[in-house]
Amino acid sequence: MKHYRHRYISQAAAKIDVDFDYDGPLMKTEVPGPRSRELMKKLNGIQNAEAVHFFCNYEESRGNYLVDVDGNRMLDLYSQISSIPIGYSHPSLIKLLQQPQNLSTFINRPALGILPPENFTEKLKESLLSVAPKGLSQVMTMSCGSCSNENAFKAIFMWYRNKERGHNNVTKEELESCMINQPPGCPDYAMLSFMGGFHGRTLGCLATTHSKAIHKLDIPSLDWPIAPFPRLKYPLEDFVKENQQEEARCLEEVEDLIVKYRKKKKIVAGIIVEPIQSEGGDNHASDDFFRKLRDIARKHGCAFLVDEVQTGGGCTGKFWAHEHWGLDDPADVVTFSKKMMTGGFFHKEEFRPNAPYRIFNTWLGDPSKNLMLAEVIKVIKTEDLLNNATHAGKALLTGLLDLQARYPHLISRVRGRGTFCSFDTPNDATRNKLITIARNKGVVLGGCGDRSIRFRPTLIFKDHHAHLFLNIFSDILANFK
Amino acid sequence: MKHYRHRYISQAAAKIDVDFDYDGPLMKTEVPGPRSRELMKKLNGIQNAEAVHFFCNYEESRGNYLVDVDGNRMLDLYSQISSIPIGYSHPSLIKLLQQPQNLSTFINRPALGILPPENFTEKLKESLLSVAPKGLSQVMTMSCGSCSNENAFKAIFMWYRNKERGHNNVTKEELESCMINQPPGCPDYAMLSFMGGFHGRTLGCLATTHSKAIHKLDIPSLDWPIAPFPRLKYPLEDFVKENQQEEARCLEEVEDLIVKYRKKKKIVAGIIVEPIQSEGGDNHASDDFFRKLRDIARKHGCAFLVDEVQTGGGCTGKFWAHEHWGLDDPADVVTFSKKMMTGGFFHKEEFRPNAPYRIFNTWLGDPSKNLMLAEVIKVIKTEDLLNNATHAGKALLTGLLDLQARYPHLISRVRGRGTFCSFDTPNDATRNKLITIARNKGVVLGGCGDRSIRFRPTLIFKDHHAHLFLNIFSDILANFK
Repeated sequence: MKHYRHRYISQAAAKIDVDFDYDGPLMKTEVPGPRSRELMKKLNGIQNAEAVHFFCNYEESRGNYLVDVDGNRMLDLYSQISSIPIGYSHPSLIKLLQQPQNLSTFINRPALGILPPENFTEKLKESLLSVAPKGLSQVMTMSCGSCSNENAFKAIFMWYRNKERGHNNVTKEELESCMINQPPGCPDYAMLSFMGGFHGRTLGCLATTHSKAIHKLDIPSLDWPIAPFPRLKYPLEDFVKENQQEEARCLEEVEDLIVKYRKKKKIVAGIIVEPIQSEGGDNHASDDFFRKLRDIARKHGCAFLVDEVQTGGGCTGKFWAHEHWGLDDPADVVTFSKKMMTGGFFHKEEFRPNAPYRIFNTWLGDPSKNLMLAEVIKVIKTEDLLNNATHAGKALLTGLLDLQARYPHLISRVRGRGTFCSFDTPNDATRNKLITIARNKGVVLGGCGDRSIRFRPTLIFKDHHAHLFLNIFSDILANFK
Repeated sequence: MKHYRHRYISQAAAKIDVDFDYDGPLMKTEVPGPRSRELMKKLNGIQNAEAVHFFCNYEESRGNYLVDVDGNRMLDLYSQISSIPIGYSHPSLIKLLQQPQNLSTFINRPALGILPPENFTEKLKESLLSVAPKGLSQVMTMSCGSCSNENAFKAIFMWYRNKERGHNNVTKEELESCMINQPPGCPDYAMLSFMGGFHGRTLGCLATTHSKAIHKLDIPSLDWPIAPFPRLKYPLEDFVKENQQEEARCLEEVEDLIVKYRKKKKIVAGIIVEPIQSEGGDNHASDDFFRKLRDIARKHGCAFLVDEVQTGGGCTGKFWAHEHWGLDDPADVVTFSKKMMTGGFFHKEEFRPNAPYRIFNTWLGDPSKNLMLAEVIKVIKTEDLLNNATHAGKALLTGLLDLQARYPHLISRVRGRGTFCSFDTPNDATRNKLITIARNKGVVLGGCGDRSIRFRPTLIFKDHHAHLFLNIFSDILANFK
């Protein structure tokens, strides 16, 4: 029986092809084990620790393998909510940290907006700007994803208002009214977002986040328009006509909302969208949908903001997922964080604030993260990791489609781009049970939406890791009760 | 003449008492020098760099001295907008970074809320919790000051709503309406803030920030109540009666606003205040004012949030500036960032979210910052740096009062607590000119409000640094035209 399953899923045995990786999972206890449970109890004394999965031994974690405090070694397909670019304890990063000339960058954190280090521009060029989406020549760094989106909104609002006032001088009334949160200084502008989208958890971001009630409950918000995001049928190529209709319906609603909100004097200054809705359940749309959405934004004078906090950094096989769309006119603003190690956003030159201190805070990111990112990008280029993501992603997706064919009662709607793959389970309980069983078999998976499992491996996730996972998961599905 | 001036200001000569500090400023060019100007031009190609003062050579910066890329060495009394706790290139931090067992913490940044490292609780206890304000047993880490305040607001809104609904279960209507930004799920709650306050630059924070129009212009906001902050006369001890009246007026307005907003169905769930308004112009209020404000918050069932992002970390002579007040009942929530190296907030147990993932994001701070903070706190304790701040602050304040007596047309309203000192100049132009001259004489100062100069030295700023500054500044004032 076991042999039969493996024959159809994956022949390849696990092997080591990066010298710092392990050769497979190694489980000693259930997870969380006794030491994790003990530590969870302690942490719970000082904060709500109910979300903690287990405690980790990062010193022992290597490559695609996460080691926990009970000595369990797991293949990590979730990579800290998609935020570990080139695996744990990468030798290049260890070397970087050991170089004496880099010490200062880690211990003397500057206020970048007023007193940057000598190599600031150079490091930005070596890191972020070397992978900037086409047409976006400007970059601002921030500390995290939420601040990246918040400040992108601000840059968009300033751009819109500047356009509206015809680049004339600001009025005294505007300067005075903004100090008390009132228009015209604080205009009634809005960002249009999509149901199911996730863009962060600060108040501005939350007004555009609509993935789970627990994120939003009890927090005051803003009356900003929310459009439906297409609910497509998978595989996309089998449902072209139905999916086109669904996408057309959503695009029509986007336009209707812009018009409707303008009628009630609430101006849609920008549209924010994820290339693949992640937290909301790994919802895809066609490249054509996004091209048309970009056209709508241009037609109505709204900025087009692509949130690549989770999709960015190479996991879809291109550095930015929106590069798959083949846009004529680039996005106006693109936000990033997670795998990029620093938060921030790229933007077109016309979105540049017209005065200092408008997009500003004390730290504006952290040069030690830029330093590490420059090294990470070097590794991505040297080791051709974008092509690797395409290749390994194909092995993973093919295997998942095969599992779907064999276990349709457990796996449906398999979808993916690069390693950014996912599938649906029948319900929340089954999903969580599968994640728990997988973890105890040595594989870390993550959930999203109300019943999906999402794959978010590192960029050094190779074919053989995919096969290793598929073999383990195939066993799990065969024995699932 | 020079001798005369020095006699009344400061007799002590500069001396080295920490082995890694320099013995005084050393100027080679005007600031910004040619190399800085060249780099500013380059940076300005990729972002608005008009706020940049000069570029720094952090490798050569030591203790209280900031070295720029043109080789100028300046006594730094601004310390990166108050965010360098124990000076540049502190030997303890260098040593920390060189220890092999710490490498992993810098390169394997985890998603702390789900997969914390083994020593997470222990490091929080060694660092943040070892200096927690009395009565606040819980702590959440965040990446920066804005996220700290945003999440503190969220914790307060959740607490308030929970109290209101009597800890009953959430209704279906709440769960559904919050997904589209509408009440009752997104209730019409507000934070009350003070005119002149600064609490960050994300949309929620900006709704409570009222220091400068440039921060708020063109950004949509929320109709939240804004109370006047006392405008006191200095020195405080000479204007006790007038100041009491002014404070009583402001407190009365706070209560009026709470009632007025509740009448229009907007509930003030919390009050946010800085112990000393910093960005807004270093505005003080009496300990009595804050005690009464705390009473008002309790009386009306609002949470009392003290923003110690700039005042925290020891510069006022206590670890938290609000510890000077002698509150009977602690603050409910205290936010921090800057000198604490990590953002975050302390809170009472009753403000703990009742479910996981409510206060959450991918990184939730950064354990490498906690690690460094633990070391910083060790240095603060070992070297008795809180007492040092009191002592050195007294030398600085005494000197400033003396200068005020001699140059009343240039210096007024001298005020301070610990080294958290400031004074007013006649106007913006004079202020900026004084800052520029001082910089060219080897002293970095910072402005705040519309005409103030604020002192924000590190915690290793000693008496002799105060005297060094006073001697230089005395010369500047004597020659000021």
